[in-house]
Amino acid sequence: MDSFDIQTYLQQKKALVDKTLNTLLPDKETFPASLHQAMRYCLFAGGKRLRPILALAAAEAVGGKPDRLIRQACALELLHTYTLIHDDLPAMDNDDYRRGCLATHKVFGEAIAVLTGDALLTEAFKVLADHRQGSPPEPAQTLAIIKLIAEAGGSQGVIGGQVVDLESEGKTIGKDLLEYIHIHKTGKLITASVMLGALLGRAREKEIDCLEKYAKAVGLAFQITDDILDMLGSTKKLGKKVGSDTKKGKATYPGILGMDAAKKMQQTLFNQAIQALQSFGEEAEPLRAIAKIIIERDK
Amino acid sequence: MDSFDIQTYLQQKKALVDKTLNTLLPDKETFPASLHQAMRYCLFAGGKRLRPILALAAAEAVGGKPDRLIRQACALELLHTYTLIHDDLPAMDNDDYRRGCLATHKVFGEAIAVLTGDALLTEAFKVLADHRQGSPPEPAQTLAIIKLIAEAGGSQGVIGGQVVDLESEGKTIGKDLLEYIHIHKTGKLITASVMLGALLGRAREKEIDCLEKYAKAVGLAFQITDDILDMLGSTKKLGKKVGSDTKKGKATYPGILGMDAAKKMQQTLFNQAIQALQSFGEEAEPLRAIAKIIIERDK
Repeated sequence: MDSFDIQTYLQQKKALVDKTLNTLLPDKETFPASLHQAMRYCLFAGGKRLRPILALAAAEAVGGKPDRLIRQACALELLHTYTLIHDDLPAMDNDDYRRGCLATHKVFGEAIAVLTGDALLTEAFKVLADHRQGSPPEPAQTLAIIKLIAEAGGSQGVIGGQVVDLESEGKTIGKDLLEYIHIHKTGKLITASVMLGALLGRAREKEIDCLEKYAKAVGLAFQITDDILDMLGSTKKLGKKVGSDTKKGKATYPGILGMDAAKKMQQTLFNQAIQALQSFGEEAEPLRAIAKIIIERDK
Repeated sequence: MDSFDIQTYLQQKKALVDKTLNTLLPDKETFPASLHQAMRYCLFAGGKRLRPILALAAAEAVGGKPDRLIRQACALELLHTYTLIHDDLPAMDNDDYRRGCLATHKVFGEAIAVLTGDALLTEAFKVLADHRQGSPPEPAQTLAIIKLIAEAGGSQGVIGGQVVDLESEGKTIGKDLLEYIHIHKTGKLITASVMLGALLGRAREKEIDCLEKYAKAVGLAFQITDDILDMLGSTKKLGKKVGSDTKKGKATYPGILGMDAAKKMQQTLFNQAIQALQSFGEEAEPLRAIAKIIIERDK
């Protein structure tokens, strides 16, 4: 697949995700309007749609039709967006900017920001459970997906990671605890995204194992890259202040391991991700290219 | 059913709900411990378990076996508890006490309180989707239940009600908007609880219609009673300060209609609830007794 162009692929998938998200959410005039405006504000503030695209690409990698799981893939973005809104709250990471725009709580106030996050989380499960539209999978499979997402997003998943992240601020922590934070805060939902695509794409068991390995490597590589960019990147591209994690006393991979070792780990994880896809043909080319983009991105 | 004793009934059902909730949540040592402690703190701070009990009683009313839906009924309490934790936050209603105990954010801090609410909400959907235990209903029916709960708890349900409630503080609002707030903030989840019990108890269509009417009347009666108690009740019994809603500039039924008219409306709704159950026999006695308790309670 010499002609495969990842930028075109990402653009096309992002357009599909954006279009679908637009149809899934109540429009911004729906009462109460402030809430529905806020739900759309952060959702359409320039996200890369990495999680839904990973789900679509994973389905393609096992011969599935990505169109059939677009709604479920969008639920991942609804859930991811809620975590961003809550993480940015003054009581949490206290970030004024997100994706280059003012954070939801800066525009709509704290109360609406909390409720907007709650509403997006709830909407994610509603979308997953809604079997009226499109060509839905078997109900039992949908239940397995809902459980997968709830576990990834729950107290021993994303939320657990955020708790430990907050509790570790300003403390000296070791590599193990930092890895816990990153695997849970970021890795769990990225892995669940790939698994969602694999399951809905009707992957065989062996394929699922390989894709899970791919996802875990990519998830951690994503976060290490974030840490490196936080230290080196530019505010404009990152959409938040450079060094903001370090300033908050948050542990980062370059902070604990040193920049060289962090970059080496990033490369090792990339190699692991590619290795995990060895038995796949060109249908996994998008997943390989996404792994590359994740470690080479500058924002 | 002369011998029917609602107090014994409520005690037995509450014990069953509490026992099941205890098994559903990770224990309080599970890492991260602060989060799992906080999840249990508010959940076991003396709730009456009205919503799960309504679900169980609705199932009984249509000849279903309440034991078969105990886990799903408990998911209602998980969701309800998350709304309490978030509503009490300083950015929201800023209440220091709940159910007579310090609010979650007063004990664990604001950040953990936000995340604890998020985790309980997520856990509710996990419990609903988990089909491994007990004698689960058909997967398609479970999906219908998940959608029902997500809609009731979503941006056009409970969350919508809370948004309008917050935005109406200190303003003069009419009876229609107050009714919107109460129907959404409280009524939607109470109705969904009764519907969950009816659906899982395999109600016939006509029974579902009657139970929905019952639930809507009871839901609104519950909130009007809350308003009346807020004006008249004692701090000790209510678990929060008397007149706290009025002091915050929140509209209440007695405030808008006057106390006499509010009490009359409470009685009318009670009569509607009983009327809706006319075609049911003694198997609906618990539902009738709950309606009575709801308007006669002193906390």
